[in-house]
Amino acid sequence: MSTKGLMQNRPLRIIDILMFAAEAFPEQGLVSSREEGDIHRTTYPESLARASQLAHGLVEMGIRPGDRVATLAWNGYRHFELYYAISGLGAICHTVNPRLSREQMIYILNHAGDSALFIDQSLLPVVESISDDLPPGIKLVAMTDVGNVPASSLETDCYEKILAGNSRHFDWPEFAEETAAGLCYTSGTTGNPKGALYTHRSTVLHALMTIAGHQQCLKSGTAALPVVPLFHVNAWGMPYTAPIVGMSMVMPGRYLDGASLFSLMDAEKVYSAWGVPTVWAGLLKEIQNRGRPPEGFTDLVVGGSAAPRSMIEAFENMGISVNQAWGMTEMSPIGTRGQLPAPLRNAPLQERIDAKVGAGRRLFGVDFKLIGENGEELPHDGKAEGELFVRGNTIVSGYYNNDKATSAAFDDAGWFATGDIATLARDGHLIIRDRSKDMIKSGGEWISSIDIENTAISHPDIATCAVIAVPHPKWDERPILIAVPSSDNLPTLEDIHALLSAHFAKWQMPDDIVFMEDLPLTSTGKISKLTLRKKFADYVHPDFRNA
Amino acid sequence: MSTKGLMQNRPLRIIDILMFAAEAFPEQGLVSSREEGDIHRTTYPESLARASQLAHGLVEMGIRPGDRVATLAWNGYRHFELYYAISGLGAICHTVNPRLSREQMIYILNHAGDSALFIDQSLLPVVESISDDLPPGIKLVAMTDVGNVPASSLETDCYEKILAGNSRHFDWPEFAEETAAGLCYTSGTTGNPKGALYTHRSTVLHALMTIAGHQQCLKSGTAALPVVPLFHVNAWGMPYTAPIVGMSMVMPGRYLDGASLFSLMDAEKVYSAWGVPTVWAGLLKEIQNRGRPPEGFTDLVVGGSAAPRSMIEAFENMGISVNQAWGMTEMSPIGTRGQLPAPLRNAPLQERIDAKVGAGRRLFGVDFKLIGENGEELPHDGKAEGELFVRGNTIVSGYYNNDKATSAAFDDAGWFATGDIATLARDGHLIIRDRSKDMIKSGGEWISSIDIENTAISHPDIATCAVIAVPHPKWDERPILIAVPSSDNLPTLEDIHALLSAHFAKWQMPDDIVFMEDLPLTSTGKISKLTLRKKFADYVHPDFRNA
Repeated sequence: MSTKGLMQNRPLRIIDILMFAAEAFPEQGLVSSREEGDIHRTTYPESLARASQLAHGLVEMGIRPGDRVATLAWNGYRHFELYYAISGLGAICHTVNPRLSREQMIYILNHAGDSALFIDQSLLPVVESISDDLPPGIKLVAMTDVGNVPASSLETDCYEKILAGNSRHFDWPEFAEETAAGLCYTSGTTGNPKGALYTHRSTVLHALMTIAGHQQCLKSGTAALPVVPLFHVNAWGMPYTAPIVGMSMVMPGRYLDGASLFSLMDAEKVYSAWGVPTVWAGLLKEIQNRGRPPEGFTDLVVGGSAAPRSMIEAFENMGISVNQAWGMTEMSPIGTRGQLPAPLRNAPLQERIDAKVGAGRRLFGVDFKLIGENGEELPHDGKAEGELFVRGNTIVSGYYNNDKATSAAFDDAGWFATGDIATLARDGHLIIRDRSKDMIKSGGEWISSIDIENTAISHPDIATCAVIAVPHPKWDERPILIAVPSSDNLPTLEDIHALLSAHFAKWQMPDDIVFMEDLPLTSTGKISKLTLRKKFADYVHPDFRNA
Repeated sequence: MSTKGLMQNRPLRIIDILMFAAEAFPEQGLVSSREEGDIHRTTYPESLARASQLAHGLVEMGIRPGDRVATLAWNGYRHFELYYAISGLGAICHTVNPRLSREQMIYILNHAGDSALFIDQSLLPVVESISDDLPPGIKLVAMTDVGNVPASSLETDCYEKILAGNSRHFDWPEFAEETAAGLCYTSGTTGNPKGALYTHRSTVLHALMTIAGHQQCLKSGTAALPVVPLFHVNAWGMPYTAPIVGMSMVMPGRYLDGASLFSLMDAEKVYSAWGVPTVWAGLLKEIQNRGRPPEGFTDLVVGGSAAPRSMIEAFENMGISVNQAWGMTEMSPIGTRGQLPAPLRNAPLQERIDAKVGAGRRLFGVDFKLIGENGEELPHDGKAEGELFVRGNTIVSGYYNNDKATSAAFDDAGWFATGDIATLARDGHLIIRDRSKDMIKSGGEWISSIDIENTAISHPDIATCAVIAVPHPKWDERPILIAVPSSDNLPTLEDIHALLSAHFAKWQMPDDIVFMEDLPLTSTGKISKLTLRKKFADYVHPDFRNA
């Protein structure tokens, strides 16, 4: 019989993070590139005071513990206030991705049964377009100044009017730490979106685990730029990690092109920037145009999809440390840390880059296992490839009101199936070989589209690329390369084969190269293979063009 | 009605820390200055393998979940293995302070009802001296190599024999995170020692909170020196924080004099050293003798009692950052962090030192309140002085099997009464004014002995000092200064008054100065005011010497 200890058991609570930051780091806070077109500055004490005013307003609107309150907004201080006020009440902050299709947005707002929807002014037209299909009784609020609400067919309240005149203190309630705090739907490639329902416990632990694993990125007294949106998996936890360590946050709003980001980062001396590779490709171009990186820029955290080696190399050559953090919506989201093992930190550049390619190393608190085709557990030897399963306090135990999706996602021991095919080195270094559904099966053998993409992108005349499978009567599936050129020198298929030949067998090489001006992106900024596959539904394989 | 979220709930477990470090930081580990006289080196993977062997051995010895297993040992790799193996089984690691009095040691071993006692070879005589009063049936184990167990009247088993031949893998059980993991008795100034019973939850959260607040001290890939003993409050959590971030630990064993510490730190390039001021005074002297600090020494964490300003100044002048962390056995123990607020980090030296004097700033996860004489809550304005109460997951909710002490230690809302008189600034900066019981009441007014000590110690001819109250028929109590001189130039009482006059009123000044060769220390290395008061029981106040 184990014995219970004699320690206080205080429920972990999200609002305590902002209360701590308001006390400990009164000089830190948020810099937001506003919808209104200007730069807005605030401090953590002021954010706490306004979150308190907002909480009073939410209560007056009738929001009760357990209610879902949706947001449709870019990164900014009001969105941050909503995070804390909604969860602080014991209600659930449901962040909605503005890039979802009309159908998906209608589905998730109704599936969540949201009581209210807070909308950035530039996104009011999105809501207008689905106004007939909103959940019954939903209250709409425009996130803008009094007198600034744009003309709209919607009946909206004004954010600043809800706050105005309320007390700047709120008596935040206590509740169990397993209480739901946030809801985020995954933009799955198939089927309807599925909701991850985060708790106060999972959110606070995720923040502490992330801080422990990302000391070099989360540096007290500096500024972080979350390019990763607040509308998607809590912006990788940054609204919680930054206030705990005492970093300011620079919120880029909706303009994420290279030039806009460069100017903002340069002006605000951003130390660490977090986001997906597609955004950094744009920033890199701007840096190359200007001939220098933004002032103070030291650290880059890349997630969402893998950073190609050429991108890592370009940033590291400028002295900017690149850290890949792999994760999923179902993982809060961070599962790995990009920090190099100590023995490699002073290694030659190429060795460091070798070690930075891949998805990073396991975070304390997240357990990994690899499962083979017959359900057997595979060794963590850097070689065995299997499906990655994850377990921990920051991993979902099910999907919100979706028993079917839930029962498909877990093994008997309760581990979550990521759907990623991976290897794990002994030191926890994760290499994602492919999404199980993105693997290409040619003649009974698997080809990893990600591996080919990562090599092909190092070609100097390719800006970005994707490998997809096309049907082939003999081989079942064959890979083709879809590339966006970076110059007028279009590489030939032979050029690509020459580049790949050092790493791939002949039968693994793509059979064709097709150029596009841009690749289609998913609502979270990843390359949409689903859209590409649809686009190439009528594609004819070279073997049959003259038939 | 709040809603439960849908996240996995995995019990926080101490053994997961070592399992993580063994995977993530295989090149890091422990360097121990051994009882056997040599330097021993091991890695986290090897520590985990040996902790597994030890766990098998403990099970064979009959240790079951909930059992108390005591250790009487200095800092070293075997003590570290015991920490993880005992708690990993669901049993309770009861660390015993070798500097306790015979009576106290008998009391706590019997009060805890320990099933086994693991003893460093140099401490076997301590146990021999109390062998008649040990708990019935207790098993004794000498922590040394096979064939190296010294002749003793005790019947002991040998540590390495217990491990030998066992599997290097152990299937660690799962249990609720509130399960007791560690037991440490406070060496209180009055009454019997009281036991703090830490849980797996409190220990893991304490480690994560400490890491979040001490980024500058806990730096991945470097070495830490815990001078703070493993036998006392988990060495301030270092056996847990260092493996999570990937630091090695340099274990100084029993020799804590300046010369021994300097040599060890210099050889092992210790980055951050953690301990009480009395030890750093010795190191400082050695540094002054040698004319340089140990190589790589960058960061100093001071706790247990306050570092005097002169000590902070001396280290900061060498470029070594001093961080005061205040805490208590009842707080796991760390309650504050020493990191300066960002705006002060590049301030002139004197301003930085001004901000470093005091007990540091509130750690995320620990709540503070100040209570005045009439039970009223006082403002955190840096001025109001009251008793400090604390609350949080790392704070005790009671004392082990001691209802009387428990009921005296908490207020109605469950906050723990620290017994410290303090001020709190708006940013959480804590200044301990005095232990309530160390305040001197003169003519109905309070005098802070700590304030006077902190100023008096800046006198160049005083090495260390203490202020105690002596009885006085007119004023009830009057302060006197007891000082250890640092040179042959003994300062006069007038010299001290001149030094104090800038900060203190005439009536607050000590009425006498008495010199001693050394001050008596408590078992945890703090100046023992209790012993001093006893020593000065027959002291006659100057006002009455010629009477």
